[in-house]
Amino acid sequence: MKAQARSLRVRLPAFLFASEALFLVLYFSFVTYGDDADAKLQNNRTDPMGNSLYRDYPFFADVQVMIFIGFGCLLSFLRFYGFGGMVFNFLTAAFAIQWAILVQGYFQFYLDGKIRLGVANLLNAEFACAVVLISFGAVLGKTSPIQLLVMALLEVPIFAITEWAVLKYLQINDVGGSILIHLFACYFGLGATFALYRPGLREGHAKEIAGYRSDILSVLGTLFLWVFWPSFNSAMALKGDDQHRAVLHTFIGLSASTLTAFALSTMLSERGRLTMADIQNVTLAGGVTVGASVDMMISPAGAFTLGVMGGTACMLGYKYLTPFLSHRFRIQDQCGIHNLHGLTGLIATMAGIWAILSADEETYGPSLYQTFNYRAPPEGDPKLLELQQVIPDLQPGLGRSAREQALWQVAAMGVSVGVAVVGGVLTGLVMKLPFLAPPPDECCYDDELFFDVPSDYGGIGGSRSSVSRQEDSKV
Amino acid sequence: MKAQARSLRVRLPAFLFASEALFLVLYFSFVTYGDDADAKLQNNRTDPMGNSLYRDYPFFADVQVMIFIGFGCLLSFLRFYGFGGMVFNFLTAAFAIQWAILVQGYFQFYLDGKIRLGVANLLNAEFACAVVLISFGAVLGKTSPIQLLVMALLEVPIFAITEWAVLKYLQINDVGGSILIHLFACYFGLGATFALYRPGLREGHAKEIAGYRSDILSVLGTLFLWVFWPSFNSAMALKGDDQHRAVLHTFIGLSASTLTAFALSTMLSERGRLTMADIQNVTLAGGVTVGASVDMMISPAGAFTLGVMGGTACMLGYKYLTPFLSHRFRIQDQCGIHNLHGLTGLIATMAGIWAILSADEETYGPSLYQTFNYRAPPEGDPKLLELQQVIPDLQPGLGRSAREQALWQVAAMGVSVGVAVVGGVLTGLVMKLPFLAPPPDECCYDDELFFDVPSDYGGIGGSRSSVSRQEDSKV
Amino acid sequence: MKAQARSLRVRLPAFLFASEALFLVLYFSFVTYGDDADAKLQNNRTDPMGNSLYRDYPFFADVQVMIFIGFGCLLSFLRFYGFGGMVFNFLTAAFAIQWAILVQGYFQFYLDGKIRLGVANLLNAEFACAVVLISFGAVLGKTSPIQLLVMALLEVPIFAITEWAVLKYLQINDVGGSILIHLFACYFGLGATFALYRPGLREGHAKEIAGYRSDILSVLGTLFLWVFWPSFNSAMALKGDDQHRAVLHTFIGLSASTLTAFALSTMLSERGRLTMADIQNVTLAGGVTVGASVDMMISPAGAFTLGVMGGTACMLGYKYLTPFLSHRFRIQDQCGIHNLHGLTGLIATMAGIWAILSADEETYGPSLYQTFNYRAPPEGDPKLLELQQVIPDLQPGLGRSAREQALWQVAAMGVSVGVAVVGGVLTGLVMKLPFLAPPPDECCYDDELFFDVPSDYGGIGGSRSSVSRQEDSKV
Repeated sequence: MKAQARSLRVRLPAFLFASEALFLVLYFSFVTYGDDADAKLQNNRTDPMGNSLYRDYPFFADVQVMIFIGFGCLLSFLRFYGFGGMVFNFLTAAFAIQWAILVQGYFQFYLDGKIRLGVANLLNAEFACAVVLISFGAVLGKTSPIQLLVMALLEVPIFAITEWAVLKYLQINDVGGSILIHLFACYFGLGATFALYRPGLREGHAKEIAGYRSDILSVLGTLFLWVFWPSFNSAMALKGDDQHRAVLHTFIGLSASTLTAFALSTMLSERGRLTMADIQNVTLAGGVTVGASVDMMISPAGAFTLGVMGGTACMLGYKYLTPFLSHRFRIQDQCGIHNLHGLTGLIATMAGIWAILSADEETYGPSLYQTFNYRAPPEGDPKLLELQQVIPDLQPGLGRSAREQALWQVAAMGVSVGVAVVGGVLTGLVMKLPFLAPPPDECCYDDELFFDVPSDYGGIGGSRSSVSRQEDSKV
Repeated sequence: MKAQARSLRVRLPAFLFASEALFLVLYFSFVTYGDDADAKLQNNRTDPMGNSLYRDYPFFADVQVMIFIGFGCLLSFLRFYGFGGMVFNFLTAAFAIQWAILVQGYFQFYLDGKIRLGVANLLNAEFACAVVLISFGAVLGKTSPIQLLVMALLEVPIFAITEWAVLKYLQINDVGGSILIHLFACYFGLGATFALYRPGLREGHAKEIAGYRSDILSVLGTLFLWVFWPSFNSAMALKGDDQHRAVLHTFIGLSASTLTAFALSTMLSERGRLTMADIQNVTLAGGVTVGASVDMMISPAGAFTLGVMGGTACMLGYKYLTPFLSHRFRIQDQCGIHNLHGLTGLIATMAGIWAILSADEETYGPSLYQTFNYRAPPEGDPKLLELQQVIPDLQPGLGRSAREQALWQVAAMGVSVGVAVVGGVLTGLVMKLPFLAPPPDECCYDDELFFDVPSDYGGIGGSRSSVSRQEDSKV
Repeated sequence: MKAQARSLRVRLPAFLFASEALFLVLYFSFVTYGDDADAKLQNNRTDPMGNSLYRDYPFFADVQVMIFIGFGCLLSFLRFYGFGGMVFNFLTAAFAIQWAILVQGYFQFYLDGKIRLGVANLLNAEFACAVVLISFGAVLGKTSPIQLLVMALLEVPIFAITEWAVLKYLQINDVGGSILIHLFACYFGLGATFALYRPGLREGHAKEIAGYRSDILSVLGTLFLWVFWPSFNSAMALKGDDQHRAVLHTFIGLSASTLTAFALSTMLSERGRLTMADIQNVTLAGGVTVGASVDMMISPAGAFTLGVMGGTACMLGYKYLTPFLSHRFRIQDQCGIHNLHGLTGLIATMAGIWAILSADEETYGPSLYQTFNYRAPPEGDPKLLELQQVIPDLQPGLGRSAREQALWQVAAMGVSVGVAVVGGVLTGLVMKLPFLAPPPDECCYDDELFFDVPSDYGGIGGSRSSVSRQEDSKV
C-alpha cells in the first residue's frame, strides 16, 4: 500500500499537469467568446438584458448544484469512503466539464476555426459531466483518481460524438436526456465495471458499508438532486410552454416515484423497515422516466404514472436484478446505476415513443411543428410557407410522420446503448492498466489509501461487517 | 417491537398505494394544463419569455430548498432520530404537495370542471406543505410515518378550505402567511399533540437528546431557511415595489431576530453559554413577525423592531412557556413550534393591523388601492373609474375603511386559530387509532423502529441522558 | 473557565443590545426606501417587472448562500469547534451586514439626509460582510464572539471608507473585488492576528485538529462557494456581455485551480496522499485570481492560466509561507487566508493591470469606454459627444490612458493593503482588551467554552494530537 500511494505522488500530478497543458494549448488555440460574451459584438443596438446569459445562467447554476453538491453528497454514503465519494466527484466533475467544453465545442459550437464560448456551452458540458458521474457510480470505491480521470478523458468524447450524431442525423425528442444521458451513462458504466471485474470482491468487503452520518449526508445529496431536477429536465426545452410543462412533469414524476419508493422499500423489507439506500436512489427514478417526453402534452396524470412505473422498476431492480447481474454476469454495479438510470431510461424511451405517436395538431396546435420539428415540412415544401405564416420563426423540418419518428427514437436508443456498452468495456480495459494505480482489493472503499485522514478516522468504525453482501450491492 | 414493525410492512404500502391510486384517478379526471403550460394556447401571438414560468419558478425553487432541505435538516437535530427527521420530512412533503395540488386546485384553480395546472399551483401547494411540516414539528419523534401521512391527508384540506374562505370572503393582508400559514400550522400542531398526549414521556426520554453532529446539521437547515425566507415571504406579493419591500423587510427582520437570539440565549443560560436549540429556532422568528405586513411601508426600522420583538417573544417562549404548556396543559410541543410560529404569528397579526391603520394615500400614492385592494371602491362606484384613470388595471374593491379592515384581520386570525385548534385535536384523535402504528413510548426518538440502521448506529450514543427534561423540551 | 463563561453572560448580551439599540436609532433616523421599493414612486408609469429587484435579487440570494452556508461550513473543519465555526460565522455575518447597510449607505446611498434602501444595498453589504468573514479566518478558534463582533464593528467602516475613496477618487477596475475585498480582508486579518499573537499556541494545541466528519462538512462549504462564485464575481459587472464574461472566466479559473490543487496536493505530500485542507482551500484560488480582470477580454485561455497560477501560488503558500510567517513573523494565520486571498489577490492585481494595458478599441469596440469608463473623454471634450452618438448612455470619464490607469491600479492596491494592515493591527489591539473575554490558550478551538454541548461531545475525540503543528497551520 505504501508503494502504491507513493506512485500516486508522481502519476496523479503528471496526468493532471499533462492534461492541463493540453487543455491550455487547446483553449489558447481554439476557444474564443461567443457573440453574447464578445465586447465588440455587443453595442448600443443590442439590449444588455436580452443577453443569453440571463436565460441560461439560472439553469446552469441549478445544474452546478446538482453536479457538485448533489452527486458529491449522494456518493458519500460509504462509511469509510466519504472523502473519496465527495472529493473524487469534485475532481472528476471539474475535469470532465473543462474537457467537454472543448470536445462538445468542436462538434457543436465551432465556427470559422474557433469554439464560441458562452454559458450555453457550460450548460451542455455539465450534461456531459453528468454522464461521467453517473458511470462513476458503477465503480465507486474501486478506482483510483487517475482511473476516474482516464474514464472521463475517454467517455466525454465518446459521448460527445454520439450526442452530436444522434442530434444531427437521427433528430430525436429527448429534452430530459433519458436516452442520450441516462441510458448512455448507465451502459457505459456497466461496461467499464464489467471490464474491471474483481473476483476478490465477489463475497463483499468489510468496508463496503454505509454509516449513520454518511447515510444522512447521502440523503441530503438526493434532496439536492430532487429539488433541482426540474431545472435539469427543462434546461434544454423550448422556451415558454414547453419548458413550463417540463418543470411540472418532472416535479410530479419525482413525487410519484418518491411515494412509490417508500411503499416498496417497506413492503420488500423482511422486517418492514425502510432502507436508506432506497430513499437515496429510488425516489429519484421519476426524474428519469419522464425525461424523454417531459416537454410534451403527456398530461399531469401521465407524468404521475411514469413516476410510479419508474419507482417500481428501480426498486425491483435493486432488490432482484443487481444481485443477479453481479453474480451471474460479473457486473459489479456499486451504486445500482442500472436501476436508477438504465431500467428507467428504457421506460422513458417507450413513454417518449408513445407520446410521439399520440401527438397531433388538435392537442398541440401549430406548435406541434416546433416541439416535433422533424415533422415540419422540409425546405421548399409549399406547406412550410403556409405554416410559417402562423409561426413566423418555424424552421424547416424533415417531413417525418410520427410512426417514422418512433423508429428513429428506437434507433437512437440502440445507438446510445450500443456505443455505450462497447465504449464502456474498452474504457474499462484501458482503466485496468496497472500504471493507473488501481487500488488492491483489500484497500477498496477506504479513504486511507488516497487521503491523509484525521486521527479520528480509525474510530468511526463501530461494529463492522454484520451487513450481508446483498444489502451492500444495493447501497 | 417486532410485531410493530412487521405491521408497518403491510400498512404503510397499503396506505401509500391507496393514496397514489386515488391521486392518479383524480389527476386523470380533473387535472389539465393551465393556459401557460398548454401547447395549443401558446402560439405566435404569445411571447415565450413572458410565460408565467419565469416569474414563478425562481420563487418555487427557493421554497423547494426550504421545504425539503431546510426543514429536513432542521428536524434532524435528535441524535438517534436523524433518519426519521430528514426522511419523514421528505415523505410527508412529497405527499402533502401532491395532495394540496388537488385540494387547492379544486378551490382556487378550478375552471370548467378541470384544475388548471402551472408552477403557480405548485408554489401554492408548497405553502400548504409548509403548514403540515410546521405541525409535524410538534409531534416529531413520537409518530409513525403512517400517522404523519394521515395528518397531511386531513390537515391539507382543512387548511385549504380555511385559506380559500379567508382569502375570498374576509379578504385580508397576509402576504408572508403569518396568519394563514404560521398561526394555523402552529395551533393545528398543538391540537394534534394535545390529543396525542403521552404521559409516559412526561419525565423525558433517554433518547430525546441532541447530538454534536446532528446539532450542526440542524443549524445548516436553519441557515437554508434563513437564506431563502425572503423568497418565501415575497413570493405572493404584488410584483414590483411590493415584492421589493417584502425582500428587504424579511432580511432585516431575520437579522434583528438573529442578534436578539444570540443575546438572549447567553443571558438566559445559567452558565452564560449559547444553546444550539436557540440558534436553530429563535434566529428565524423575525421571518414570521414581519410576515403579515411584509409588503407594506412599515419602514426598515419597523422591520427591525419586529425582528427584535419576535426574537424576544420566541426566546421567552422556549424558556418559560413550553415547559409550562407541557406540564400544565399536557401539550408536548417537541420542537417548540408555539414559540417560533405561534407567539410570533400573534405579533405579526398585530403589526399587520397597525400597518393597515397607518396606511394612507400620502405614503402609498394611488397604489394604496392595489396593496390594500379591499379599500378600492366597489364595482360601479364613480370613484373607481376616477382611480382607474391613474391605475388602469385596478380591480374593483370592497370600499372598506382601514378601521373596518382591522376587524377583518382579527376575524381572520380568530378563524385561523379556531379552525386549527379544532381540526388539530380531531386529527390527533384520528392519528391515535391503533392501526396507524404509533410507536410505543420506549421506541420514540429512535430510528431503529422504522429503519434498517447501519451497524455504527449503536455506537453513536456517547454518555446519554445527562440532559434535563427542561432542556430537551426546548430542542 | 467558569468565571470566563459567566462574564460572557453579561457582556455578549450587553454588547448586542447596545448595538441593536444603536442600529435601530440609526435605521429609524436615516434609512428609508430607495425609489424601486417606494410605493409612492412606483405607479402606472413604471413597469413592475422592470424593478431593480429582478436584476439584483438572484445575485443577492446566491451570495447569501456563500456567506451563510459556504463560509459557515468551510469554517467548521475543526473537530471540536464545529459549533463555533458555523455559529459564530452566522452571528458575525448577520451583524456585519446590518452594520454595513448603515455605513456603506452613508457613503454610497445617501441622498437628502436619508439612506435609500434596496436590494442593491444589501448586495453591497454582503461584500463588506465577506471582508469580515475572510479576516475571521485568520483568528478562528482563538476569539470570543464579542471579539468577533468588535472586529466587525471596526472593520466594516474602515473597509467602507477605503472602498468609497478608491471607487470615487482612484476609479479602478476590480469587478470581482480581488483588490478591494480579498487583499483588504487578508491583510486586515493578518494585522489583527499579529496583534493577537499567542505564544502559548506556538507549538500547536491538542484540539487544533480536523475531524473526519468535519472535514467532509468543510468540503461541502467549499463546494457551495465554488458553485456560486461566478455570481459573486459577476454581480457588480456591467449587464450584458461584461457580466457574461465574468461568469465564464470565474468558472474556468476555478476549474483550473481545482485541477492544480489536486495535482500539487499529491505531489507535495510526502506519502503521495491528498490533504483535505488543500481541497478545501486551494481549489478556490482561481476565483480570486481572475477577480480584477474578470469582466475584460482576457480570453478563456487567460482565465485558465490565472486559475493555474492561483492554485500554484496558494498551494506553495500553504506549504512553505504559512509556517514561515507563523514562526518568524508571529502571524498565526489559522485558515491560511494569506494564501487564498493575499497571494492570489496580488496575482489578480497584476493580471488586471496586464488586461488594462492590452485593452484597445479593436478588441472592445466602443464599449471600451464603458468597461474602462475612466478612459472615456471628460465632460466637455468634443470626442465625448462623438462617442455618445455610438453609445448614447456613455458617461463622461477622466480621459486617462491605459498606462496611467496601471499606476492607479497599483495605487489602489497600495491603499487597500496599507489601510488594511494598519487598521487590522489597531483593531487587533482593541480586540485584546480583557473585557472582550478572549478565551485562554487552553480553551481555544473548544466549543465547550461558549456552548452547552451535547453529551456526546466528549466522545468525538478519537486518538488525538498525532498531527504535527505544520499540518495544523494549514488546515
